[in-house]
This record gives sequence, structure tokens and C-alpha cells, in this order.
Amino acid sequence: MTTDDSAKFIYLDNAATTMMCDEAAQALSEALSPEFFNPSARYKQATGMLERINSDRAVIRAALGGTFGEVYFNSGGTEGNNTVIFGAKGRKGSRIIIGEGEHDSIYAPAMELKNNGYDVCVAPINTDGSVNFDKFKQLLNENVSLVSIMHVSNETGAINDIAKFVRATKRVAPNAIFHSDGVQAFLKLPLSVAALGVDAYTVTAHKIHGPKGIGALYVKRGAKIKPLILGGGQESNFRSGTESAPLIRSFAAAVRYCNENFEANYSKLTQYREYFAQKLTQYLPDTVIITPFDNSIPNILRVAFKNVRGEVLLHSLEEDNILVGTGSACASHHESRFKQMFGLDDEHIEGVIRFSFSAENDQNEVDHVCERVAYHVNALAKTVRR
Amino acid sequence: MTTDDSAKFIYLDNAATTMMCDEAAQALSEALSPEFFNPSARYKQATGMLERINSDRAVIRAALGGTFGEVYFNSGGTEGNNTVIFGAKGRKGSRIIIGEGEHDSIYAPAMELKNNGYDVCVAPINTDGSVNFDKFKQLLNENVSLVSIMHVSNETGAINDIAKFVRATKRVAPNAIFHSDGVQAFLKLPLSVAALGVDAYTVTAHKIHGPKGIGALYVKRGAKIKPLILGGGQESNFRSGTESAPLIRSFAAAVRYCNENFEANYSKLTQYREYFAQKLTQYLPDTVIITPFDNSIPNILRVAFKNVRGEVLLHSLEEDNILVGTGSACASHHESRFKQMFGLDDEHIEGVIRFSFSAENDQNEVDHVCERVAYHVNALAKTVRR
Repeated sequence: MTTDDSAKFIYLDNAATTMMCDEAAQALSEALSPEFFNPSARYKQATGMLERINSDRAVIRAALGGTFGEVYFNSGGTEGNNTVIFGAKGRKGSRIIIGEGEHDSIYAPAMELKNNGYDVCVAPINTDGSVNFDKFKQLLNENVSLVSIMHVSNETGAINDIAKFVRATKRVAPNAIFHSDGVQAFLKLPLSVAALGVDAYTVTAHKIHGPKGIGALYVKRGAKIKPLILGGGQESNFRSGTESAPLIRSFAAAVRYCNENFEANYSKLTQYREYFAQKLTQYLPDTVIITPFDNSIPNILRVAFKNVRGEVLLHSLEEDNILVGTGSACASHHESRFKQMFGLDDEHIEGVIRFSFSAENDQNEVDHVCERVAYHVNALAKTVRR
Repeated sequence: MTTDDSAKFIYLDNAATTMMCDEAAQALSEALSPEFFNPSARYKQATGMLERINSDRAVIRAALGGTFGEVYFNSGGTEGNNTVIFGAKGRKGSRIIIGEGEHDSIYAPAMELKNNGYDVCVAPINTDGSVNFDKFKQLLNENVSLVSIMHVSNETGAINDIAKFVRATKRVAPNAIFHSDGVQAFLKLPLSVAALGVDAYTVTAHKIHGPKGIGALYVKRGAKIKPLILGGGQESNFRSGTESAPLIRSFAAAVRYCNENFEANYSKLTQYREYFAQKLTQYLPDTVIITPFDNSIPNILRVAFKNVRGEVLLHSLEEDNILVGTGSACASHHESRFKQMFGLDDEHIEGVIRFSFSAENDQNEVDHVCERVAYHVNALAKTVRR
């Protein structure tokens, strides 16, 4: 990947968004001018575009293992999540279960439904960010119309055993729609939505080195989900609006890029994080590792440092051209719901940083980053009045 | 504008979509890699992107004359129109008025509300595609919560005098929200949404030589419209979802491109269409001109040929590498609502073609296109059994 400033910073915020891979950038740039036609027009240049959109669709469906359903393009993960919550909500008064750690694009629509007469229940998460299965089961009853549990926590990288949640749900409420937000999971772990058994699954391109403004919702055949956006009837009447063939082409290119080196990158990231965490706790033994290493995608490492404020540390690291997050970037627009959820003591609760890696990161960066983190944490801990 | 095949066809379907201008294509391609950051992240690379998004926003607001409101980015015209219908619908049972000729992305959401207890009324159009003002006025009462009348008909190019419709509406229903779908009007005629007095106005990039997948909704200060898509709170909480800075940059570049040569192109298109229509009716005197030349944008010419089927003619012209439409491309997914609306007799009702030009078209093309149209219409009229 090439950015003008690529040599100038170390990017460790890949859970917020990723750099475009060259393949996706090139696919988009090359398609922009020649593929300008409206795919709904009737001449062959346009119908040919529709065919290519469908072949890109097949790429994404295959990467999802979506044998039993179809993939519909939309503008991204937030739209996909909204589509499911509003489109599969069942009748008023029915129960909707979401995880406590869901992204705002699930949480906010669910709260909107709660204010409109739906019985919205929030399944508590464990301190590692995964949903507590036993507490989830207690919320199940035959009145459940919709469940939405994220596949991977964007905050910690923890994986939910979605197949298990689906089985438990369908046993009690066979007609409930089960959705999983897969935005952080897609191409970050081996995946088959058919094997998970979900009715719907949200993905987006910009978390996998593709462009912003394009995503997709997988919908299992027969799952009753109403469209969010109505009109010309594009995407088999599931998502109206003129399709952006260049964005779709670029999305498919990003999928191919991630798939090509999947195994090698998975191993690399696993080792990289292991080394990073080890080094970090050598320098700073009081650091709490929140991410569960035995049950998470390999590229997220959420930690809590002692006696520092995460946001202050973020800006200190920024001075060293090291870019990290404190958690969901989307949540920067309001007070985080997540602060209290990870069982941290008073000395650690403010000190959360989310390091999220990509295969572009280099193990040589680790020593440097760990040194700088240790320097700033020690410097800040001395000055912070708690 | 450059496409690999640009020399190979004559594109007269600019109301369906437009070729990317080089400026917009370049802006998008150049921003893709360096501007990959999540604008909601907290380091300066990200906050700098938010600043640039806001400066692009100002470009679009200025082009709209949106002094009294703000512009919020979304995925395009269909989303913008859905946002207004679902987000400004008022209380159940209230009256919603839309024009008979509205795009499907207004019509379909309105019909959804009709099925859910709203008093949805359709204001009839005149045979030139404009909304009949007197009949519209008869539908107004104090129970009206929302009006949506398109600024320019995508079918005929006819202009509705939106300021007049707004005044009439506000006199009877001062609190009603007045929306206009400006997708076909934006940068096709001199425009000030402040002067129109609308509460909301929909635009999209791909009709003005920008990319597909980005649009904007202008909202007047104080107008109560709820967001369609909830989540992280981007776009001042009006449209959640990670912003696509490269698409926004490209949208702004397209706006600049259209604005730069606006007057010259407007004159050119006016003369071009005049010449085209004159020539066409010389060859084919039985042709009905549906578009009202004294009250339309200059780049759309809807005509009805005698004793031919529009779709057959479209494909005949396609063989000559002349690309035209029969009407809304979006409506290709279902039977058109528009066939009966233009007062055509039996010999013309099936023969509708929409020629839509851009400043890229060349007057030299006219003679060739008119000749080929005449040839095919004459050939087809002989063979068609009616």
C-alpha cells in the first residue's frame, strides 16, 4: 500500500479503518470512467455492468461462505446494521436481543425501537468483550423476533461463538431472525456464514483495505427482512439506488487481496501481537491485557495502562507518529458506553488503548512502539492527578 | 472526459447518469490512498480529513445557495429521498402530498406510508410532466405534514415552480415540511434553495459528472427531519456511518466542474436541443415533443414517435452506437407508471424516447443521430403491428 505519508507514521488503528490496498485503489480508479453507465439502463454497456456487478457479488458471497443466501450491496456497515434492526424487527412488543458491546449502528436503532414499544434486551458482555452466553440464554423466549450479536468485538477483538448462539436462539424461537455484525470478523478469521447458521450478516469494505462507501448484507434465503431504502428496485428490490459499479469492483478486489495471503497474514499477526504484548508487559508490568488471546482475532490488542488517560496517551504517541485508538472511532461523537464494561479497577479504567494491526505492520516497529509507549506511560503516570 | 470507448458511442442518456469528469475522477483516485483515515479518529490526520470534508461541504452548500441550512452527505439521491419521506412524515393519519411524476425513491416510500395509515395524496401532473398547480392546491389543508415535489421532472425535464408551491403550502400548513427532489435540477439550472424556500432538497453526484455512491441532503435550519440511519453520530448526528472522504472530495470536484462552465454550457445545450428537435421533426413530422421548451432544463428532450415501440427503437439505435433512454432507468425494474401520463394517443403512447444531453455532446452528432432515428422509426413503423 502506498500513501504519500506512509513512511511518516506507524498505523495501529486498523479496527477503525484500513489503508486501501493497491489492488482495490487501482480497481476503483480504473473502473471510474469506463464503467460510468447506469446499470439499470437497457443497452449492452449497462447490462454488461450488471453482469460484472453480479460476478463481484459472487466473489463476496464466496468469501463469506454464503451458499444458502445472497449478498446485497449497500453503503456500508452502518446501513447494513440499520437495515436488519429496522427491517427484521417483528411485531411491536416482540423481544429483540442485542449484545451489550454492539456497535452504535446496532445499539442506536435498537434503542429507537425500545422507545417505540419493542421489548429490547441487552445481553451483558464478559470482561473480555465477548457476550456472556448463559446470561444471553436467560433472555430467550418464544416472543423473540430478532437477535443481533456481533461476530467479533470491535473493542477487544473477542470472538462470539455465533453458531452456538444461533442454535440456542432457534431452539427457543425458531422463527426469530438471527443477525451478526461481521464488520470486524470478515477476512480476519476463517468464516462461513452458512456454518454459523445466521439469517443475516453485515460486512463493509473499508475494514478490509477496500474503499469507504460500500458494504454488503448477506441474507439467507427465506429470511424475512424488509428493505430500509425503497425506490427503483435495484439489488433484487432489496436495496434501491443506482449501484456504484466502481466501488463494488474495488470491494471485490479488496476481498481477493485479503484472501490471497490469508493464512500467512493470520500467522504473522498472531505472532506479532504475541510479541507486542509480551514486550509491552515487560516494560510496563502493571498493564492489563483485556483482549482474550485464545478467543480473538489476531489483529486487535486492547490494553489498560495504569494511571494514565487513554486519550492523553493517544496524543502523546501521535507526537511520535504512532497512530492508535482508544476504542470505536464512531463512538468519539459521544461518551463511550464501554468504559465500565471490562472490569477494570480505578487505576486502569481511564487508561484504555486499542492497538489494531494489519499485515502491513512490521515486527521491527514493535520495539520502537513499545519503547515509546513505556516512555509516555511512565511520564504521564507521574503527572496525572487521579 | 475520457473513457476507453468514448469514441465508440454517442451518449444521450445523461438523465440516467453522466460520465465522470476528469476532475472528479482524478480527485477520487488521488484521495483514495492518502485520505484513508477514519474521520472520527482523534489524531490530526483524521481531524484534518474532517476539516476537508467540511470545506467540500461548503462547496456544495454554496452551489445550492443553501445559506439558511446545512448539507449532509449520504449515499445518493435514493437515500436522500427516503430520508425525507420517512424522517419528516409527521404523525400517523396526517396528509402527505407527492407529485404524480416523482421518482420511485419518493413514490415507493410514500406508498409504504400510505399502507401504514398516512393520508398520502398524489398531485396530478400536466401532460408536459410538470405538477398541476391548481390540482395541487386543492389537496392542501392544515393536516398536511409533508410535501415532496420534484424540482425538475426526470422524465421530461419540465421545471416545477417550487417557490410557488412552497408559498401555497406554507400559507395553508405553516408547519409542513416542504421537500424537493433536486437530483435532475442541481447544476442544470440557476438554483438557490434559500430562494426556493424549501426545507429539504436532495442532490446526488452521479448526475453531475461525479461518482456513484455519494449524494447530499440540504436541510434548512430548524426543519424537523429524523435521520434514516442511526449509529456513530457522524454528519452532526444526521447520517451515521464512516464518511467517505474520497467520494466527497470527488463530488465537490464535479460541482466545481459544472459550475465553471455553467453559463456557456447552458446556452450550448439550449441551442443544441432546439436544433435537434427541429431536425427531428423535419425528418419525422408526426413526432410529438413532450418536453416543454419554455419551461424545462435544456438537456432533456422527451419525444413520442408514431407507430414504434420506444424500447425497440432504443435497441435499434444501440446497434448504431447511439445510447438513449425510454425514461427513468430506475423504473426499468418494473412497469412504468408514466406511460399514461402524457396525454398521448394510441399511435404514440408506446413510442417514447428520452434524449438527454451533456455539454460533452457535439452539434456535429445531431445530423447523424437524427438521420439514424428517422431511418429506424420509418423502418420500424412499417413492421409494427399495432
